Amino acid sequence: MNTPVRYALVGGGPGSFIGGVHRMAAGLEGRFTLVAGAFSRDRSLSAERGSSWGVDPNRVHTDHTELFAAEAARPDGIEAVAIATPNDSHFALVSDALAAGLHVICDKPMTATLEQAVALASLVRASRKVFALTYTYAGYAMIRDARARVQTGEIGRVRKVVVEYPQGWLSQSSDAETRQASWRTDPARAGIGGCLGDIGVHAFQLVEYVSGLRAETLCADLARVVSGRRLDDDCNVLMRLVGNVPCVITASQIATGERNGLSLRVYGDHASDASHSH
Amino acid sequence: MNTPVRYALVGGGPGSFIGGVHRMAAGLEGRFTLVAGAFSRDRSLSAERGSSWGVDPNRVHTDHTELFAAEAARPDGIEAVAIATPNDSHFALVSDALAAGLHVICDKPMTATLEQAVALASLVRASRKVFALTYTYAGYAMIRDARARVQTGEIGRVRKVVVEYPQGWLSQSSDAETRQASWRTDPARAGIGGCLGDIGVHAFQLVEYVSGLRAETLCADLARVVSGRRLDDDCNVLMRLVGNVPCVITASQIATGERNGLSLRVYGDHASDASHSH
Amino acid sequence: MNTPVRYALVGGGPGSFIGGVHRMAAGLEGRFTLVAGAFSRDRSLSAERGSSWGVDPNRVHTDHTELFAAEAARPDGIEAVAIATPNDSHFALVSDALAAGLHVICDKPMTATLEQAVALASLVRASRKVFALTYTYAGYAMIRDARARVQTGEIGRVRKVVVEYPQGWLSQSSDAETRQASWRTDPARAGIGGCLGDIGVHAFQLVEYVSGLRAETLCADLARVVSGRRLDDDCNVLMRLVGNVPCVITASQIATGERNGLSLRVYGDHASDASHSH
Amino acid sequence: MNTPVRYALVGGGPGSFIGGVHRMAAGLEGRFTLVAGAFSRDRSLSAERGSSWGVDPNRVHTDHTELFAAEAARPDGIEAVAIATPNDSHFALVSDALAAGLHVICDKPMTATLEQAVALASLVRASRKVFALTYTYAGYAMIRDARARVQTGEIGRVRKVVVEYPQGWLSQSSDAETRQASWRTDPARAGIGGCLGDIGVHAFQLVEYVSGLRAETLCADLARVVSGRRLDDDCNVLMRLVGNVPCVITASQIATGERNGLSLRVYGDHASDASHSH
Repeated sequence: MNTPVRYALVGGGPGSFIGGVHRMAAGLEGRFTLVAGAFSRDRSLSAERGSSWGVDPNRVHTDHTELFAAEAARPDGIEAVAIATPNDSHFALVSDALAAGLHVICDKPMTATLEQAVALASLVRASRKVFALTYTYAGYAMIRDARARVQTGEIGRVRKVVVEYPQGWLSQSSDAETRQASWRTDPARAGIGGCLGDIGVHAFQLVEYVSGLRAETLCADLARVVSGRRLDDDCNVLMRLVGNVPCVITASQIATGERNGLSLRVYGDHASDASHSH
Repeated sequence: MNTPVRYALVGGGPGSFIGGVHRMAAGLEGRFTLVAGAFSRDRSLSAERGSSWGVDPNRVHTDHTELFAAEAARPDGIEAVAIATPNDSHFALVSDALAAGLHVICDKPMTATLEQAVALASLVRASRKVFALTYTYAGYAMIRDARARVQTGEIGRVRKVVVEYPQGWLSQSSDAETRQASWRTDPARAGIGGCLGDIGVHAFQLVEYVSGLRAETLCADLARVVSGRRLDDDCNVLMRLVGNVPCVITASQIATGERNGLSLRVYGDHASDASHSH
Repeated sequence: MNTPVRYALVGGGPGSFIGGVHRMAAGLEGRFTLVAGAFSRDRSLSAERGSSWGVDPNRVHTDHTELFAAEAARPDGIEAVAIATPNDSHFALVSDALAAGLHVICDKPMTATLEQAVALASLVRASRKVFALTYTYAGYAMIRDARARVQTGEIGRVRKVVVEYPQGWLSQSSDAETRQASWRTDPARAGIGGCLGDIGVHAFQLVEYVSGLRAETLCADLARVVSGRRLDDDCNVLMRLVGNVPCVITASQIATGERNGLSLRVYGDHASDASHSH
Repeated sequence: MNTPVRYALVGGGPGSFIGGVHRMAAGLEGRFTLVAGAFSRDRSLSAERGSSWGVDPNRVHTDHTELFAAEAARPDGIEAVAIATPNDSHFALVSDALAAGLHVICDKPMTATLEQAVALASLVRASRKVFALTYTYAGYAMIRDARARVQTGEIGRVRKVVVEYPQGWLSQSSDAETRQASWRTDPARAGIGGCLGDIGVHAFQLVEYVSGLRAETLCADLARVVSGRRLDDDCNVLMRLVGNVPCVITASQIATGERNGLSLRVYGDHASDASHSH
């Protein structure tokens, strides 16, 4: 059957950033339809958001438990849920969604600790549901193309990988931090990684995803550059991938003047066109 | 009220190009909901497309007249229609939609002749409905920003405008033309302009939209470069805008190696930052 | 024999622009040695320049006639002369140099009128000397490579040529013009072309040099954009080259923010690599 | 006095790379004149090179000791010497040149060991001569501009430095190595650093030169990527500069497809123009 998947969104209320992106991305190809949600813990905010997105008011909630229960009672209830809440809530929400028999689309990071990650892997396996972690850059056409070129052997054996991810938006003092910045620099909400957890994980995921090689050893330099920061706002990592392949990740949120300058280079051992004679 | 606008799409069946883009664009911000359509003249193709986009089968038609009548009979009928059919059908469809009391979103070009354009302008004025012509590039953030910089006087008085629009996809012989290429190079479907009508109009619209200046005089060189072409596949235009401002448009569909290389430059009389001393 | 060519420079005194460039370029490969000169009509300025470049003071003059005579009297006299004086003097200087039995390197433009050009061509043929006109960009590696790709058929038959040459240095009012600007905007010194003569000729030369095709017809729009200008400071040209190939030249000296943005595109009828499957 | 400096070149014979670059660079501004040399240990090659550069045959030698002695005996003898021989010879040649009372321009690297470096520093101080080590990139206008922007405080306090230097010319097997490659990958000629010594030092020099900050601590990963290599051909370094400023250097000679991709980024704590509102 080819009809769109019915899903709900947890998070995405007025003022949030990533929830609306999930809705847009899910809707682009017309393969998903947003039919329910718990957009905010505040009833009027959740209702406002549901209305603006054309969601039936009877299917708008303020709590994910209530949402899952109400939908389970409907013949046309949700098949999947997208989770777009702050980092610290992901593990519990995913666990509950799987328990409710739902497929799950979860924003990164997956969990705050290795123990939670191991536990979650077990839950997913047992559930036989799709668990999708949205490393958004993995979906870009250029990234897919890069990965395909590696997989087909076009560049030969991978010999070096460099990923850079400079941002500048946290380059000013934490005193003036915006709402988006504030939870990201708070260990209680963001977890133990600052820049590393927020954007370094994207760089790391791309290294393995595009090269097809797992990281084996690493040496990281995490810096707190802006005075008063409690988590790293700049991180630089040397790695060796399987087969002793050197790799460098440099990511920063204090790189003044940069917006979102993600770039990736994978070098292979095939001679490039540039060195051919004509 | 802030609920999404209910609209139908005419065109957009399997294999078409721009209809799906209208649906995606309309859905991005959640301000429009696709609730009906005449996606194709073929019943099964129209139904297939409606199903894949989650449209109620009772609201899927094969003809726009039938569509408009059926929707007018519903209390929750469409408020607007998006038209994404080949160029030669636009004028009649827009006229019928306005007569049916609908707001209209129409793909470019608006009409095939000046006479139709003048007639349509009268119909729109009389209807008191919104008539939107989707010059898609006018919606890009960089274009909006460029226009704003001109309007606020940041670059001073406009003194030169250059718009380039090279594409390469029609650079090979017409013998091998794809479906997308075939109607665009057929005067009966595309109208009297080939490259000029397909992409030159985008360049022209951007000149006036960004500079805020109307074209007054022009000298155009339309070329049919590929052997056997019946319409221009390369066009180059010198213009003077109001105030005697020189302007150049160069557009091509035989620029081998190019994809969709639209670029725009507007020069003003304010000294640039680059020439400031620090 | 492989020893460097002995040459003199006419022009190139303190404050001039292109004379020093001739000296640098001639010296790069060590194939030319500057041994004499008439660097300025002012004796002390000519001497100052000669000293700073290590030229024997006895071989420094203020007048080219005197220079040619003195060098002709030496057993180790100059074999060639480089001419780097304002535009209006080129024809007379080249004629005198050829008459003196010298090879000539002359900065562009060659002459101010077609009649002079025809006369000069006769003088050169009769002299059996090398006459080199320094269209400097023709010597760039990228230009040589582009030309070679056309000549070897790599891009197929040429189908379109676009050359852009935007500069911004004359974008401000002529009231404040520098010494370099002042003679270039004075018809008595620069000749009948402003922007066209100063940089448009470079663009034109590159069209023919790289494509290997002669221009057959043209339509030009010369604009005087800055108030008070007596010569064009912006020029835009549509051309057809041999074989009916469309070509566009757009050159400007009032393109605020640009430095020396020369670029060249030549499109052929071979499918590009970009459209190959891998 | 403003006359050109008389200098000799040691090295630079037919087939060499950097000697000719020294001659070109020294000649560009006309401030140096090449008057003598020991271009090769082979008499005919040294003579061939001298002739092609217009050097008096009586001042062409095959040995630097002979060259220094002969020039010292002339009233118009050399004032300076440029050294462009393989890495392992630099220390002895510089020492001899200083002892001969000459100013010295030496190609990098300065010495092969720290002990030699310390000894050379003493010799230079005692000699009261100019000792110039040609980190060529330090002379580029963009690098000078970058350094000036840091020094004047334009970007504020330096907070991060990233230098990348990818090359691809040693990406293929050492079996097929060219003459230029062969001594660079031979520890006896190149010293203990391969990629690090050949290009990593340029990156390191730029870090300190542009930022104005000394490196304090570092962690380096040197890789021998191509099978059979005896020296590193890829190197990645994490550093902290004075004030705890994070810095990354990534350099490679096996980065297939790259030519000489040196780039430099220095981030400061001043808000950038990009984040200003207009």
